[in-house]
Amino acid sequence: MTLILALDFGGTKLAAAVVNLGSRDWLHHERRFSPMNADAHSDLEIMRSLIHSLLQDTKPVAIGVSFGGPVDAKTGTVRLSHHVSGWEEIPLKDLLEKEYDVPTSVDNDANVAALGEYRFGAGNGYDSLFYITVSTGVGGGWILNGQPWRGAVGMAGEIGHMVVDPAGPVCLCGKRGCVERLASGPYMAQDVREKMENGLSGKIIREIVRDNLALVTGKVVSEAAALGDELAQEILYRSAWGLGVGIGNVANLVNPQLFVLGGSVTKAGTRWWDVVRKIARETALPEVDFAIVPAALGDDAPLWGAVALAEIHRTSA
Amino acid sequence: MTLILALDFGGTKLAAAVVNLGSRDWLHHERRFSPMNADAHSDLEIMRSLIHSLLQDTKPVAIGVSFGGPVDAKTGTVRLSHHVSGWEEIPLKDLLEKEYDVPTSVDNDANVAALGEYRFGAGNGYDSLFYITVSTGVGGGWILNGQPWRGAVGMAGEIGHMVVDPAGPVCLCGKRGCVERLASGPYMAQDVREKMENGLSGKIIREIVRDNLALVTGKVVSEAAALGDELAQEILYRSAWGLGVGIGNVANLVNPQLFVLGGSVTKAGTRWWDVVRKIARETALPEVDFAIVPAALGDDAPLWGAVALAEIHRTSA
Repeated sequence: MTLILALDFGGTKLAAAVVNLGSRDWLHHERRFSPMNADAHSDLEIMRSLIHSLLQDTKPVAIGVSFGGPVDAKTGTVRLSHHVSGWEEIPLKDLLEKEYDVPTSVDNDANVAALGEYRFGAGNGYDSLFYITVSTGVGGGWILNGQPWRGAVGMAGEIGHMVVDPAGPVCLCGKRGCVERLASGPYMAQDVREKMENGLSGKIIREIVRDNLALVTGKVVSEAAALGDELAQEILYRSAWGLGVGIGNVANLVNPQLFVLGGSVTKAGTRWWDVVRKIARETALPEVDFAIVPAALGDDAPLWGAVALAEIHRTSA
Repeated sequence: MTLILALDFGGTKLAAAVVNLGSRDWLHHERRFSPMNADAHSDLEIMRSLIHSLLQDTKPVAIGVSFGGPVDAKTGTVRLSHHVSGWEEIPLKDLLEKEYDVPTSVDNDANVAALGEYRFGAGNGYDSLFYITVSTGVGGGWILNGQPWRGAVGMAGEIGHMVVDPAGPVCLCGKRGCVERLASGPYMAQDVREKMENGLSGKIIREIVRDNLALVTGKVVSEAAALGDELAQEILYRSAWGLGVGIGNVANLVNPQLFVLGGSVTKAGTRWWDVVRKIARETALPEVDFAIVPAALGDDAPLWGAVALAEIHRTSA
């Protein structure tokens, strides 16, 4: 048995799994939610207990780690987490290598998920792809020439803060009309709530959340849109439009073969997908060819990507 | 003597030069304007006479070619020229290899200029850069990991048709508010003319062209702006703004170390450069680091890039 240990520090949940090198089935797989007041210390403690339960007396040959936040992939140091406190400048690779005495690779979740989809998922057989997650936020990861492309300071892939509508609503980043501001679940929910508070109908939305607007989420917007709610359809259209413009721009700029889309918002139904594809096609130049496909690995994309990361590390070492 | 022959099919002009391998000075250099009614045949005839005059009885070890239009760099086939007729699907590499019996590499001018600046110009010593030419059009070329990145179908680098203002003026490509629509010289001139025809002042512009609005060019707009013309300043600001947003978006997406800007519009003065840099910085996320610098090779960038292209071909062959 040549075991690879894959870890996923996800912000709201922690997951770990073990696979035999070359296999596509987990030997063991564990998942835990982060407690409400989690910090880096408690996350690491939970992960240690998951690892202990998975490995028992066995030892992996490599560890791959997906982290939900900016990472310096060269040193394996976490820069910070936007969801969990205490992760500033934590040398996660060194820490795990010392503790488990095994070569470890760490990268951020978008890059790792891109790698996972490339090796084991929707991107298998392609040479260049851009993976986009559309969920709480909008992030992306590159595969170019069959290799992860992380950028000069590891920041490549930030399609979320591409401005697609300078006259659009203000984003947390300070700019207007970013892809994330239009396309992400929480912002869709916020915009729907605001419009309903200002008197717009949203009748079906109101029925779904039983008049408690605090319960509106991106998922509720998708559901209401599918049931014919006009406000929900308008907001969902804008989500797909923003993402479609972003994808078309990226196609013109970098011309990858494939766009792989994952994350909760991509479950919004065929109408959302149709708009994304149509607008991306209209935005890209006619000569620029590409396909837009759903991610294949679902919630396990970071873990499978972590396996791929560990494998690459073994091959290049 | 180990000679490299560099050719530049430029749309309005043709240039050829010979350099000794490793040298940074041309041995010989010739340039000719394309006639008004040029086609692929006449361009090739002129180029043949330039080559004959340059080479005399010597023979190069490799030929590098920059072509002003889309090229399939793998096969060296020209897809078309937007300026000169008859270039559709011309196998330029095969044609030159048969005629001169020398390994030949062909790529489009933006990619070749990017390579030139990387090897011999402003990008020397960097590992990743995006070269942007802002002139009659707006185009770009990538160096990633020290290699040209051309995209899946050779279309990477098209920053010109990134939409930065969906409410902006209509571009020839059918979209609104593309970078090229806002930033390129001819469009700046067109917008100034239209605004003046609709009654806006442009007093200094009018003086420069002696009341003949047909003579307004991007250069005239730059000159008038420098002399304090408010309309010219407004249009020039919008050019810099559009390019700045585009560059900031590219920085977020691909995170190259460096942006190298060439082309006639980049000679518009420090105010234009200041706005490009300021808006790009505001558009990019704070963590995304980059520099924006002027191209160093000027009109010779395609020729020097062609030399680099020929050298790469020799090394990898």
